[in-house]
Amino acid sequence: MDIDAVNALPYEDFVDVFGNVVEKCPIVAAAVWSTRPFASLNALEAAVSEFIDALPESGKEGILRCHPDLAGRDLQRGTLTRESRGEQAQAGLDALEPAEMSRMARLNGEYKERFGFPFVICARMCDKANILQQLSERCRNERAAERARGVEEVKKIGRLRLQGLVLTGSPDKL
Amino acid sequence: MDIDAVNALPYEDFVDVFGNVVEKCPIVAAAVWSTRPFASLNALEAAVSEFIDALPESGKEGILRCHPDLAGRDLQRGTLTRESRGEQAQAGLDALEPAEMSRMARLNGEYKERFGFPFVICARMCDKANILQQLSERCRNERAAERARGVEEVKKIGRLRLQGLVLTGSPDKL
Repeated sequence: MDIDAVNALPYEDFVDVFGNVVEKCPIVAAAVWSTRPFASLNALEAAVSEFIDALPESGKEGILRCHPDLAGRDLQRGTLTRESRGEQAQAGLDALEPAEMSRMARLNGEYKERFGFPFVICARMCDKANILQQLSERCRNERAAERARGVEEVKKIGRLRLQGLVLTGSPDKL
Repeated sequence: MDIDAVNALPYEDFVDVFGNVVEKCPIVAAAVWSTRPFASLNALEAAVSEFIDALPESGKEGILRCHPDLAGRDLQRGTLTRESRGEQAQAGLDALEPAEMSRMARLNGEYKERFGFPFVICARMCDKANILQQLSERCRNERAAERARGVEEVKKIGRLRLQGLVLTGSPDKL
């Protein structure tokens, strides 16, 4: 799909295609449609990023809270979004050893208890060992720093989903 | 559920319960969780309203674009959210005569063409004749006025869903 095709989409189709670029937040795609036409894929990525930056801090935390735990309840129940399922599988999170699984659950719990939002990381850029290490380290951050870090990870995830959708027609095939 | 029970919900449960108070925008519930504890149901309603007001104008349009057409594609395909299905049925929109149906489709199309977002109205406060009349009239508004009007309707819908959930455990049983 070239950028002219993206710009020609009515909002309903645009939200159908890009509604999960930010996990469970179709409002983001629905909002950036207001700023079309986009000069390029980069401009569309920038529009998503700028919309997130313009949210109040509670809204940024809201975006984080729309994300599932890594190797958590939704993965076990099969209720992940298609995008998250692919990303968690790519990082090997759907095939953890029992010891890794319980370490992940414990650290996810500590993280959520401390910050009031889940640990978000661009899993496609990591493997499971790296994710566990970063989760353990980031548990020790300050809340504001960690909120900002989570938002940067949301943007990385969104960028990859967007590139996948525009360049290959699939959010996880790049 | 009294307000103390609401305030005691972890964010995951809070988003599970209130995630569709604003149609397909769980970010709203996920964001207002940051501002708990709520002194009352009124305070929770006010927090939702304030979060919406704090969004950039594109975000308000984004919220509108997450709403389905009345008596539209999602109703016909059975893909409405549970809340919207109940509300559209209460207003009689699931049992339109063919002439009403085609008038509604034509006016919905004109409205979306003119404004770039769908006609949103708190259907539970209307019957089908009233909805058709308002749709026809609101098609003639200015864009900024109509965006503001749509947002006020989103808040009315949200208030009824919230009251239903807190007072009866169901979004549409009040």
